[in-house]
Amino acid sequence: MRSGVSSMAAGRSMEWVKSVKGVILDMCGVLYDSGEGGGKPIPGSAEAVKRLMCSGLIVRFCTNETQNTREKFVQKLRRMGFNISVSHVFSPAPAMLRILRERGLQPHLLVHEDLMEEFDGVETTSPNCVVIGDAADRFSYQNLNEAFSVLIGLEEPLLFSLGQGRYYKETDGLKLDVGVFMKALEYACDVQAEVVGKPSAEFFQSVLRDMDLQPHEVVMVGDDLVNDVGGAQRCGMKGVQVRTGKYRPSDEHHPSVKADAHMDDLAAAVEAILTHHAS
Amino acid sequence: MRSGVSSMAAGRSMEWVKSVKGVILDMCGVLYDSGEGGGKPIPGSAEAVKRLMCSGLIVRFCTNETQNTREKFVQKLRRMGFNISVSHVFSPAPAMLRILRERGLQPHLLVHEDLMEEFDGVETTSPNCVVIGDAADRFSYQNLNEAFSVLIGLEEPLLFSLGQGRYYKETDGLKLDVGVFMKALEYACDVQAEVVGKPSAEFFQSVLRDMDLQPHEVVMVGDDLVNDVGGAQRCGMKGVQVRTGKYRPSDEHHPSVKADAHMDDLAAAVEAILTHHAS
Repeated sequence: MRSGVSSMAAGRSMEWVKSVKGVILDMCGVLYDSGEGGGKPIPGSAEAVKRLMCSGLIVRFCTNETQNTREKFVQKLRRMGFNISVSHVFSPAPAMLRILRERGLQPHLLVHEDLMEEFDGVETTSPNCVVIGDAADRFSYQNLNEAFSVLIGLEEPLLFSLGQGRYYKETDGLKLDVGVFMKALEYACDVQAEVVGKPSAEFFQSVLRDMDLQPHEVVMVGDDLVNDVGGAQRCGMKGVQVRTGKYRPSDEHHPSVKADAHMDDLAAAVEAILTHHAS
Repeated sequence: MRSGVSSMAAGRSMEWVKSVKGVILDMCGVLYDSGEGGGKPIPGSAEAVKRLMCSGLIVRFCTNETQNTREKFVQKLRRMGFNISVSHVFSPAPAMLRILRERGLQPHLLVHEDLMEEFDGVETTSPNCVVIGDAADRFSYQNLNEAFSVLIGLEEPLLFSLGQGRYYKETDGLKLDVGVFMKALEYACDVQAEVVGKPSAEFFQSVLRDMDLQPHEVVMVGDDLVNDVGGAQRCGMKGVQVRTGKYRPSDEHHPSVKADAHMDDLAAAVEAILTHHAS
């Protein structure tokens, strides 16, 4: 064990890494910071992803990104130097489509313009539920009133939220995320939304099924303590928080969620995982 | 006691009316329905207010209306046939001004354009709190992000909400009220807002002080079960719900708030109060 790595792990034991067979990576705030022109890669992350994929560990990507179709999102990541295949990326929209199909639901959609393509062919003429994603500028008073009117008109209001994030960082500042508008509509209609995406256990389990691994064999690396780390831990996985993206120092003293390790960035996390794994 | 009145009171005893010396009236949904052109009076309400004011009971008006200055609001009511004086109307903005002054606070304001005048002369260059009212179309994604950025930049985020209503009825449909955006910002910043206006006990007590009456001597008449009836009851007043405005039949079986009486409208409520009072 190299001293640099043990200090990065803040003295906490990383014995558990020895049983790890797979890694799930959060994307925004771990691989890149979002913003104008699609964002920019976090230094060392592209190289770290490459190292991980060549290590023999099974690697999957898990994002609550809903401002793009999964295809366009992966194209953007490729332009930033990440060699990722679409089938390894898990995002809320495809999971939502499955739910709509399985339960025979017609959604009223309040999602980002660029996500609409994912819902092509979905019947929406007689909506019996509302689906919200990170709609950004589309979260206007008028559109929120419309979604509310659909919900309150249903015998039992049914609200799906693609993630429950509070906010995220763009290069020009912090932006409110979908969870904030989920809470708004929950209060307006006195309902509880079903969250599709992280930290929903169902969502993480679909990734584990695809990896064909047991929870204790997998570690999640993310910048969001509650949704990435806490969500993964509740499923029986390990959770590592990186000090990039939306990380805040107070996360290291959170009252209920405690990461299994903190690392300065993805490069440091991968270095620690591979070192402890091999040791 | 006339049989028509007793059936309106749904068989519940109204003995308590005998000790009533004052009445607080909610305005929107009780006196008038809001909407295009300022709204329209609810039939019989103007006459009922007149009867009440001539009865010898002390009458005050209590509203969470924040789309207008109190002066303009009263002018609107006068045009609808309600002879009301400004000093008898209690609304959140003047109460908020008092709090800002007493606590030496500078607000970032996210309120309706037409309310801004109430805050004329208030210093806002270095905001150390955020005040939200029923800003309607001003609740844009950009303005919400701005208010959020101010809050999250404070060492201890301080959020005031002028009311906590869920929604209200305009002639062209239901509209989301300030409480929904309060919940949104509360979740975003992990804080709890201070509500100024109904159902805050402090707000009701300022009305009671002005009436110079004890809580058990006053009845509140409103269409909002939780904020009007429940808020007044928590202060020791009686609470009557009218079946106009935002009233919904399910209110009569609410799990925690039980009105002291339900009446079809203000005219019926005043008839019942005056009849029982005199009997």
